[in-house]
Amino acid sequence: MVDISLKLEKNARNIMLVLAYDGGNYHGFQRQNNAVSVQNILEKKLAVLFGHEIQLAASGRTDAGVHAYGQVINFFTTGSIPIERVVKALNSLLPDDIVIQAAKEVDFQFSARHSAKDKTYIYRIQQGEVLNPFLRNYTWYVKKPLDLALMNEALGLLVGEHDFSAFRAAGSAPMHPVRTIYRADCEKSHDEIVFTFWGNGFLYHMVRNIVGTVVNVGLGRTSIAQFKEIFVGKNRQKAGATAPAQGLYLKEVTY
Amino acid sequence: MVDISLKLEKNARNIMLVLAYDGGNYHGFQRQNNAVSVQNILEKKLAVLFGHEIQLAASGRTDAGVHAYGQVINFFTTGSIPIERVVKALNSLLPDDIVIQAAKEVDFQFSARHSAKDKTYIYRIQQGEVLNPFLRNYTWYVKKPLDLALMNEALGLLVGEHDFSAFRAAGSAPMHPVRTIYRADCEKSHDEIVFTFWGNGFLYHMVRNIVGTVVNVGLGRTSIAQFKEIFVGKNRQKAGATAPAQGLYLKEVTY
Repeated sequence: MVDISLKLEKNARNIMLVLAYDGGNYHGFQRQNNAVSVQNILEKKLAVLFGHEIQLAASGRTDAGVHAYGQVINFFTTGSIPIERVVKALNSLLPDDIVIQAAKEVDFQFSARHSAKDKTYIYRIQQGEVLNPFLRNYTWYVKKPLDLALMNEALGLLVGEHDFSAFRAAGSAPMHPVRTIYRADCEKSHDEIVFTFWGNGFLYHMVRNIVGTVVNVGLGRTSIAQFKEIFVGKNRQKAGATAPAQGLYLKEVTY
Repeated sequence: MVDISLKLEKNARNIMLVLAYDGGNYHGFQRQNNAVSVQNILEKKLAVLFGHEIQLAASGRTDAGVHAYGQVINFFTTGSIPIERVVKALNSLLPDDIVIQAAKEVDFQFSARHSAKDKTYIYRIQQGEVLNPFLRNYTWYVKKPLDLALMNEALGLLVGEHDFSAFRAAGSAPMHPVRTIYRADCEKSHDEIVFTFWGNGFLYHMVRNIVGTVVNVGLGRTSIAQFKEIFVGKNRQKAGATAPAQGLYLKEVTY
């Protein structure tokens, strides 16, 4: 949680950062006591730069191994560094696998978490006879060919406002399971298949569970009728396995 | 060196493998006593598969951190595994960052090292305001814009048979410094600049020293006239710094 007590200080500012990170070396985004997370590293370096302890809030957490192109965070500070110097200064303190792309001073009302309107995730699958070792940490390698048309037919069923219980993590906290998906499709790009998911929110593991189940459709193991039954039946037990973390990217958060 | 004593055994075979590897986790290709090299791993797994100690030869070594799309090796074996099973069996034993692409039984005369006719290397530079963290281990990040036309003018001077002493590693073994380069150019590809070098052979660090010097041309720090002077003057001291290992790939070896 953001330390909002600082709002009351004179000269306090609310700072928003957009950042990319390679999730491969981190135990997820969220602060951990016994493991290194992206948030741990960020808060440590922000404290150095702004001269006091920083507690940041993010648009949402990402799991261990999941990447981000455009994660958004905010925090309050009484530190004096000019906003136009923040990107360069922070990047010089951060390891190469966490990169600040933009910094902006925002209204006190702005919350990276609560002001978020919608999010876009992408998921990358690598296809082909042999694994490309340079993409092993950045894609899921599926050797057998996938039927793109069938997968897009299944993905099309997800667009709109629906109960996504079939694709929520087994045993996850009982959140309201209805979300609106504006876009869900996949396309071929060289030897990859890139999935795009754009929606007003996502349940825990939802994108990875959808991809795992849609890949079964693409492999011919699950028919469209069966996919529909899984989705409408809201039964996680019948859906496919959770697709691996390293193929998933939080691409963009819109405010 | 290949263990040629096996040539004399009946049922002995000469096996050629084509492989890709991510050099990031290895202390170069060549066998090391106190560090893990690609050759160490390969020879260990080949011994498991073929049932006896294997000594392999490669088209050439690659330095620590340098990658390969199409490294070629050969070795002699009396092991009985059918050639068509070798790729799959080896890949199941190897770590994900070393991938066998092809296996072929070849004449006893074939040597991955001595039969090589020419080689192609590529070098990838990442451009842009902020580093893309997903490419940090696979490209050299040069933030400032590079003049492609000027770099290609400099690279064009290298094509043909020349003495490449200016670009050999300082203090390297006194090999004959004349090589023939068939192609040397660079082109833009999205946010990257990709250099291609095709020649009958390359001196130690030659590609990385050329790239380091050509980048100085692209940045406007070295003029074409100065580049020509460095090249013709055969003086390593005047050339640019060695470009980092992680941008370099041995792409292909021709026999």
